[in-house]
Amino acid sequence: MSKVITPRSEDYSRWYTDLVTQAQLADYAPVKGCMVIRPHGYALWENMQRVLDRMFKETGHENAYFPLFIPESFLKKEASHVEGFAPECAVVTHGGGKKLEEPLYVRPTSETIIYSMYAKWIRSWRDLPVLINQWANVVRWEMRTRLFLRTTEFLWQEGHTAHATEAEAEEEARRMLAVYARFAEEYMAVPVLRGLKTEAERFAGAVRTYSIEALMQDGKGLQAGTSHNLGQNFARAFDVQFQNRDGGLEYVWSTSWGVSTRLIGALVMQHSDDQGLVLPPRLAPVQIVVVPIFKGDDGVREAAAELARSLAAAPAGSSGPDALRVRLDAREEVSAGFKFNEWELKGVPVRIELGPRDLASGQAVVVTRHDRRKQSMPRADLPRRAPQILEEIQGGMLERARAFVASRTLTVDTFDEFKKRLEDPGGFLMSHWCGNGACEADIKGATKATIRCIPLDSPEEPGRCVRCGSPSARRVPFARAY
Amino acid sequence: MSKVITPRSEDYSRWYTDLVTQAQLADYAPVKGCMVIRPHGYALWENMQRVLDRMFKETGHENAYFPLFIPESFLKKEASHVEGFAPECAVVTHGGGKKLEEPLYVRPTSETIIYSMYAKWIRSWRDLPVLINQWANVVRWEMRTRLFLRTTEFLWQEGHTAHATEAEAEEEARRMLAVYARFAEEYMAVPVLRGLKTEAERFAGAVRTYSIEALMQDGKGLQAGTSHNLGQNFARAFDVQFQNRDGGLEYVWSTSWGVSTRLIGALVMQHSDDQGLVLPPRLAPVQIVVVPIFKGDDGVREAAAELARSLAAAPAGSSGPDALRVRLDAREEVSAGFKFNEWELKGVPVRIELGPRDLASGQAVVVTRHDRRKQSMPRADLPRRAPQILEEIQGGMLERARAFVASRTLTVDTFDEFKKRLEDPGGFLMSHWCGNGACEADIKGATKATIRCIPLDSPEEPGRCVRCGSPSARRVPFARAY
Repeated sequence: MSKVITPRSEDYSRWYTDLVTQAQLADYAPVKGCMVIRPHGYALWENMQRVLDRMFKETGHENAYFPLFIPESFLKKEASHVEGFAPECAVVTHGGGKKLEEPLYVRPTSETIIYSMYAKWIRSWRDLPVLINQWANVVRWEMRTRLFLRTTEFLWQEGHTAHATEAEAEEEARRMLAVYARFAEEYMAVPVLRGLKTEAERFAGAVRTYSIEALMQDGKGLQAGTSHNLGQNFARAFDVQFQNRDGGLEYVWSTSWGVSTRLIGALVMQHSDDQGLVLPPRLAPVQIVVVPIFKGDDGVREAAAELARSLAAAPAGSSGPDALRVRLDAREEVSAGFKFNEWELKGVPVRIELGPRDLASGQAVVVTRHDRRKQSMPRADLPRRAPQILEEIQGGMLERARAFVASRTLTVDTFDEFKKRLEDPGGFLMSHWCGNGACEADIKGATKATIRCIPLDSPEEPGRCVRCGSPSARRVPFARAY
Repeated sequence: MSKVITPRSEDYSRWYTDLVTQAQLADYAPVKGCMVIRPHGYALWENMQRVLDRMFKETGHENAYFPLFIPESFLKKEASHVEGFAPECAVVTHGGGKKLEEPLYVRPTSETIIYSMYAKWIRSWRDLPVLINQWANVVRWEMRTRLFLRTTEFLWQEGHTAHATEAEAEEEARRMLAVYARFAEEYMAVPVLRGLKTEAERFAGAVRTYSIEALMQDGKGLQAGTSHNLGQNFARAFDVQFQNRDGGLEYVWSTSWGVSTRLIGALVMQHSDDQGLVLPPRLAPVQIVVVPIFKGDDGVREAAAELARSLAAAPAGSSGPDALRVRLDAREEVSAGFKFNEWELKGVPVRIELGPRDLASGQAVVVTRHDRRKQSMPRADLPRRAPQILEEIQGGMLERARAFVASRTLTVDTFDEFKKRLEDPGGFLMSHWCGNGACEADIKGATKATIRCIPLDSPEEPGRCVRCGSPSARRVPFARAY
């Protein structure tokens, strides 16, 4: 608590790391590139998991669990997949004190091990679709890491589905993209672009990769989730065939899709400020903290405890599945001011202060974290009004983030302006692109900016490629990205 | 569905494996010693997790996540710990295409990595107690594996707590043992002995290991959960010190405790029969299945759908946290008989059959899985009666399991009888033991039977050791075990 958070304006990257460690979301582990997710960060992940898991089940998916280890020969069965993933794998060569005959790769993603099982389970059209999700840890050896955003080990979910037709697989890939977009906007209050990745940015082994793309406060993009139409690539590699209704044999059509603990990084970067985290009420581990301001034995403590109890018993409305998540901070050994700072650092959406004067007047002071606004309110009304206040904060945070993204979505027509705007102020640069991978690579080489996605809803607009001047049918968002 | 389950009387071990694979709880993975937990098995695990997680939180614990990889040097810091675990570890020697400077062990348990962090986080008595739990996968290289009971990779939770005093750590270790015992009995309907492990069976690095011990239908014991008082062993190894209230430096006192997917194996073995799984209602993924028996378009389908809807909307009572878990099986392509067999195999506690005659009479046939009893009941009463029926099943299953354990808890006073009873019928052999580790090892060598635990509530009874004849103060339960 005694440490200072570097201001965003001074060093955005240090601000982020200071914040994540001082708010106790995560800490560096003694293993290179790995992190420890501390209770405050893990509680956030649990809330994300609960909502996403419900959304997956509502769309017909079941959870399962597949092994951590993948035999080297499996990874090699899909050519572009092994090329994409093998170089960043951790490899187990010894087990039980002996050298293994075949090295085992710690899963970087589970397509290969899962399709080897689907080959065993799927026989007929009656077995389809298979709609399975897994919550798991994965490992990708990273050279440059950053807490939550890029770590060697991270937690994620990976959906893996198999279908009888190409159209069904495509529909599934798009359905899950929409689920991710809805989660990002309605729960994280993070506005996203939905679109198709270019060929260069496609998942190793996919036919089409869709993604949701967010924009952080420093003007950098962040890929927040991906959904892949895998076509029949893995089905062919692992011989996953089914007997169709006419008795013929066909390869299944499949998808995979995932989001990870990276979402926590996106959440932090989108909303937080120099005082600490700003968490959206629908995901905040603690939604309301009640802080009594007391000197002697003046009844404030008891009234605060009573208020916390009545808030916790209030119906949560749409802001949570169960009850409001309320904390009473009645610690004696630290001052009220210390507590205010601590809960601001930790991002609790609503702080309710209760002092002797409030007690006498039947009021309480309500401070909302995202705009740091203070209001006096009748104490008796709070249990009824609290869910509504939380929803207003949730809506306010999304609106503010939307306004930010709009202000940083810039129409850029020349490459000089492109380079300039990328530095100042940064954002989604909406520019024309000829559709040529060489041009895309050239822009990336010169500026580190990539095409975040080709938005699904982008309007047709004839123009000329910002780099080469060739004809282009629409603008695409370029940005430097995490 | 066309395969046959080996009867228990013919081959108990094959019966178990047939059951687990055919009921689609789990399948063998293409990686030696690993399993795939299929959706039906994972749903069972999710229900277990939900209840246990609530119990942990009610006792003040928070979840966190620590890295999968443990540097070799960490494992070596606690002498007995490395001796116990290093030989059964999987070792990562390469990452990102390069040989690592220091090998990384895939966690077999996380004490070492966790205490390295606690050393950083804990400074003062104000930081204590630290009450953290982690849900994770762990790897222990096993030579002989069995689905759920012993696999190279398994899922578990591991609690790791640090306290200011020895007494608090001991209290915590016993508190979590009591939580496990309550979960086993009240949710799994598996009666357990609670006790202290002998020195020979103690966790590598613990001062005291407590366990809960169950008894399977074949008379073999099964350790279902452990809770360790670690004293100051890991605190000393990782230098976890705190400033006490008087300003002095002390090592923390700590505990760890865990249960794993092994519980699913215990659940299956305790209750199931030759027809399939028998699942306790409080944990069953599906509690009630409604099966319409129809030929033509006679209104049965609609009535069954309506019944399923009204059951799903009924208050669950104490049998579940939310609503009743109800499934309607309206498939057209298979017969009612096929469905009955399938749901019996999958262990659904209650099946409700609805045919044209039931429709006319306002009745439905209720079949309870654990005793295969059929009863006709007024259909309109079912939403009200269903929670009560489920609780009766839950109670009946525990009672039956208790009666079984009582019938197989045998007082044995001579070593000849000991050897005989161990074979026929098998069970907890309550015998005197002198307390000498050599005698314990000798019995194990001769019979494969081990002391399951020294029960916390065992009465004093002077006697003579079943092996060596030396004086003994109490009987202890011996058994062969999984």
